[in-house]
Amino acid sequence: MRIALDAMGGDYAPAVTVEGAVEAVNELSNLSVTLVGNQTELENELREKHYPPSSINIRHASQTVGMDESPSAALRQKKDSSIRVAVELVKAGEADAMVSAGNSGVAMATSLFVLGKLRGVERPAIAAVMPTITGLFVLIDAGANVDCKPIHLLQFAIMGGAYARNIFNISSPKTALLGIGEEDAKGNELTKEAFKLLRDSGINFSGNIEGKDIFTGEADVVVCDGFVGNIALKISEGLAEAITKMLKRDLSDRAAGRLGYFLLKDALKSFKKKTDYAEYGGAPLLGLSKPCIISHGRSSTKAIKNAIKLASEFYAKGIIDIITAELEATMIGRENILVKK
Amino acid sequence: MRIALDAMGGDYAPAVTVEGAVEAVNELSNLSVTLVGNQTELENELREKHYPPSSINIRHASQTVGMDESPSAALRQKKDSSIRVAVELVKAGEADAMVSAGNSGVAMATSLFVLGKLRGVERPAIAAVMPTITGLFVLIDAGANVDCKPIHLLQFAIMGGAYARNIFNISSPKTALLGIGEEDAKGNELTKEAFKLLRDSGINFSGNIEGKDIFTGEADVVVCDGFVGNIALKISEGLAEAITKMLKRDLSDRAAGRLGYFLLKDALKSFKKKTDYAEYGGAPLLGLSKPCIISHGRSSTKAIKNAIKLASEFYAKGIIDIITAELEATMIGRENILVKK
Repeated sequence: MRIALDAMGGDYAPAVTVEGAVEAVNELSNLSVTLVGNQTELENELREKHYPPSSINIRHASQTVGMDESPSAALRQKKDSSIRVAVELVKAGEADAMVSAGNSGVAMATSLFVLGKLRGVERPAIAAVMPTITGLFVLIDAGANVDCKPIHLLQFAIMGGAYARNIFNISSPKTALLGIGEEDAKGNELTKEAFKLLRDSGINFSGNIEGKDIFTGEADVVVCDGFVGNIALKISEGLAEAITKMLKRDLSDRAAGRLGYFLLKDALKSFKKKTDYAEYGGAPLLGLSKPCIISHGRSSTKAIKNAIKLASEFYAKGIIDIITAELEATMIGRENILVKK
Repeated sequence: MRIALDAMGGDYAPAVTVEGAVEAVNELSNLSVTLVGNQTELENELREKHYPPSSINIRHASQTVGMDESPSAALRQKKDSSIRVAVELVKAGEADAMVSAGNSGVAMATSLFVLGKLRGVERPAIAAVMPTITGLFVLIDAGANVDCKPIHLLQFAIMGGAYARNIFNISSPKTALLGIGEEDAKGNELTKEAFKLLRDSGINFSGNIEGKDIFTGEADVVVCDGFVGNIALKISEGLAEAITKMLKRDLSDRAAGRLGYFLLKDALKSFKKKTDYAEYGGAPLLGLSKPCIISHGRSSTKAIKNAIKLASEFYAKGIIDIITAELEATMIGRENILVKK
């Protein structure tokens, strides 16, 4: 597998992107990474690193995209950015998949603009992984589409299900609609309509799920619009951090607490691991014609390494072909929904 | 102050509602509670309890409302329910405020139907309290309105600000709009329009806030529609519970962990207290003509006691008059927004 990595993207790039790529190629055979970005900087980062020589190469890109730039401006003015060049490599068939921890709005807009949507897909969506007490679930859409129509949510469910099945080996993913009550009739205008589409779609749909139940493992795929999904994801991230801080602070106030904290370290570490986005590396933008993985701006070396491994697995398992087939099967007879949307 | 309590509402009613009322009248002088519900059951619960004799009385109501009943059916068929009778007591001036831990949809619909909205209010909203690392913030709307217009969010901000100032003594509450990025232009159709209204309203508006930042104390009032707010509230509740469970489980697996947990108990207790809805008792439905406090279905004795105390304070401080005046001041010149909404 050949992965194009936006080596200038992310808060700690290019140091962690290069280190992550080196770790990935040292762990996986059959993997090569093209580091896209400033040639001189990337050569400096690679110096004194050890890796199979043919497994990493550099493609120069003269521009970088800042974290605050708007997608439309970047598309117009940054035609030689590390994001854009990485996506173009995939388009040209010189890479099988791309990974970026840079400006996620720009990465999404660029990959959509350059690669285009899969046939039948209305809106590509981000599939993020979140922890439960016993395992994990896929949240889709985690932030690509702020205003959605019911048919989009049905497509998110199908794409998220294919992802859960093929990457996390969940044979028949239980899929639920994120809402404000379990009763069928509860929700806002969007989710009430989406409920009917999901119920009649033939997927393993378990109905509405409330926010308090998503961490108990009741659903494998949780579907919502990208505005709600992004808020859900960020609140979970913020609360997990706040709780860790509160516990540490309360403990350091007391001697017994300090001993308690020392004894607790392993449990806190295992908890952190469970809630750490770095474990999953990144989230695919599902519904594009090629695999694109969007990583957290704060990505660590480990997160980049895992994102590269995820991109390889995503490509190797042919998930895009699987999504295409499943969308077609589910959408047969639904052309009228697409038209009147 | 005279509080009407839906004594049949909540998962553990009437035992905890009666016990909560007894504790409240024993703690606060100048407080009387009317327990509304089945006379015989309530008399049984009150037997052998100690309280100033004139501080608690019973008003019989022949019906109760189940947790799954729909508001429209309850309004039609349950005209002698404990919720309905409690609200009617407030309407008739026989009580100053009401508290219910029963079916929250029915409690909201009934109080809105019977008591009506404050002049100038488009939509009453639930103001819930959530913890931060250093204190708390008010989340509004936490679930009353699933589909909102921008003007509703402006009114929520004004009502939530009055609540934060008068109940939590925050002199100039920093108010933020819950969204998916700090930049002004980010959000969905609703929040982009609401952003402009909030920015131009003269309130202490700090812009958009992301989900990950709501627990750091950056905002005192966080505004959103009731669908998003309910999901935010429930996700926080679910995640806090999941984290506590994961820590306990990971700790009980190891002897050192068990000792650690023993030493940790105080910190976990203080954390639980911080995230425990029972500390705040309930959430007012702001924008009604009289004070109504909606409590959690799982309310404990302490939650009921605190909800009764909150209802008393809400009434004693004249918050409804304050909200009326502030809404009028902010809405002057905005009649056109109300018309074109």
